[in-house]
Amino acid sequence: MSILVVGSVAFDTISSPAGHVANILGGAATYFSLAASYFTNVRVVAVVGDDFSAEHEAILKERNIDTRGIERAAGKTFRWGGTYSDNPNEAKTDFTELNVFEKFQPRIPKEYLDTSFLFLANIHPTLQAAVRLEMNGVRLTGGDTMNFWIQRTPKELAETLRLVNVLLINDTETKMIAGDSNLPRAAKKVLALGPQALVVKHGEYGATIFFREGAFGVGTHPFRAPALPIDEVKDPTGAGDSFAGGFMGYIASQGEINREVLKRALFYGGVMGSFAVERFGTERLQNLSRGEIDARFQLFRELTHLE
Amino acid sequence: MSILVVGSVAFDTISSPAGHVANILGGAATYFSLAASYFTNVRVVAVVGDDFSAEHEAILKERNIDTRGIERAAGKTFRWGGTYSDNPNEAKTDFTELNVFEKFQPRIPKEYLDTSFLFLANIHPTLQAAVRLEMNGVRLTGGDTMNFWIQRTPKELAETLRLVNVLLINDTETKMIAGDSNLPRAAKKVLALGPQALVVKHGEYGATIFFREGAFGVGTHPFRAPALPIDEVKDPTGAGDSFAGGFMGYIASQGEINREVLKRALFYGGVMGSFAVERFGTERLQNLSRGEIDARFQLFRELTHLE
Repeated sequence: MSILVVGSVAFDTISSPAGHVANILGGAATYFSLAASYFTNVRVVAVVGDDFSAEHEAILKERNIDTRGIERAAGKTFRWGGTYSDNPNEAKTDFTELNVFEKFQPRIPKEYLDTSFLFLANIHPTLQAAVRLEMNGVRLTGGDTMNFWIQRTPKELAETLRLVNVLLINDTETKMIAGDSNLPRAAKKVLALGPQALVVKHGEYGATIFFREGAFGVGTHPFRAPALPIDEVKDPTGAGDSFAGGFMGYIASQGEINREVLKRALFYGGVMGSFAVERFGTERLQNLSRGEIDARFQLFRELTHLE
Repeated sequence: MSILVVGSVAFDTISSPAGHVANILGGAATYFSLAASYFTNVRVVAVVGDDFSAEHEAILKERNIDTRGIERAAGKTFRWGGTYSDNPNEAKTDFTELNVFEKFQPRIPKEYLDTSFLFLANIHPTLQAAVRLEMNGVRLTGGDTMNFWIQRTPKELAETLRLVNVLLINDTETKMIAGDSNLPRAAKKVLALGPQALVVKHGEYGATIFFREGAFGVGTHPFRAPALPIDEVKDPTGAGDSFAGGFMGYIASQGEINREVLKRALFYGGVMGSFAVERFGTERLQNLSRGEIDARFQLFRELTHLE
């Protein structure tokens, strides 16, 4: 089944202890699409400027990603600059130029309206809600958000959360939405706002999925996927979006949606996140094989598997 | 097989969002002993003052812990006061009164000299080394340390690390010893200093064991045990020492020492740490059953187990 992602395409300028790159293709929709493309057909709705070239688009097209929903607007593409120090979980933002992304109004091509799976990357919650309502035939909607929207647009976010089946955010965002510093308690409060499942991303420690009572199966036990300890994190940019791409892409590739599928999806999310950070930008995600992905999936299993 | 722990017995005064307790029995050797007592016979070498009463000793004796190695010195027992805010991983120390612990010189009763397993809790590395050299018949030695010794006594610590088979420390300590901010790289550097295995405790995210090439089995793949998300962390004090007690106690209870045993031990460590934080002080560790422990072990397995 195909999946549609709505979110940002950007040009990133990144410094880390491993080096420096300028104006490389990035953005949540880009990382998500590339990661998901190893599992299913991917369609993208985003906006870019005049500076988005055929070479940039080729990075997506080579992975068979449907780019008809990428709108070209007059002006420059969204640009972001960031620096990572020794702690890969913390980026210092050097600059943010929203450019054409500032006025982004997602337009869904009518050929996309039959898409079964939807991922709402981190954009204004009102835009997320509008897309979800337009795509009224989707089987499952995943979503992301960030501290900016949690603090500035809590009402709009609350509306969106009622439309999202699986929310994927990090520890800090979970605790911020819930106003509770204890993770499992905060997770329960977030689930009460709408989602049937909540994926909390822990960075280098993996991720946990919490289920609402009765959602996708029986019980409320959470499930945790570890992250592989990685010798060299070159560039943490896009790790979370790649995680979401692996997670949602795997789900979209399955006929059934149940807890076992979601658990395996959590592992595939970790796998794609772990590949993303090994090289700068999208480099590692452009040329993977399904064999490499499944070999790492096995490594992740063995990492926590007792005889 | 029995295990000997050498470390602190203390009286703790603790504040957390869940409440306040004053002068309750604590200390690394106490938490370790109680946790390990569910798996094997435990012997303790520590020092206490005149204020250590029969009631305090009874807490250990009721778990069949051999207290003959607890020396009574003139003066007061080590006292520590700490406050936890919302983040259970960070304690603010309110006061530290070393008292009789300041001059602690571990004396091993001769009845203890045949003990097969040894745990060197967090004390001066020179004292740790002296104990290890005196206990020359041990099969396996575990050890702990802290930032204070890493910074103040690096040479002495290096000597001790050559005598320890399994070092149990946290992420920050691992990176500090190695002078490397990347965990798997730092782990490799720590293993090069002596230990055959390194257990890195991640607090609420579980723990990872790294193996030196060829130690306890084949290969260098690490193994990770998750931690159970806990709704209410009442008092994080002693979680790491309880982890060590479950880990070492389980190993001591097994005939063989191999990677499968160490992996299961990592899960049992997490289990005992998770019980410890549910109540203030040692309360939860005093009255567990092996059935409760094994039920939680199963929960931990299910937490990461794919069909």
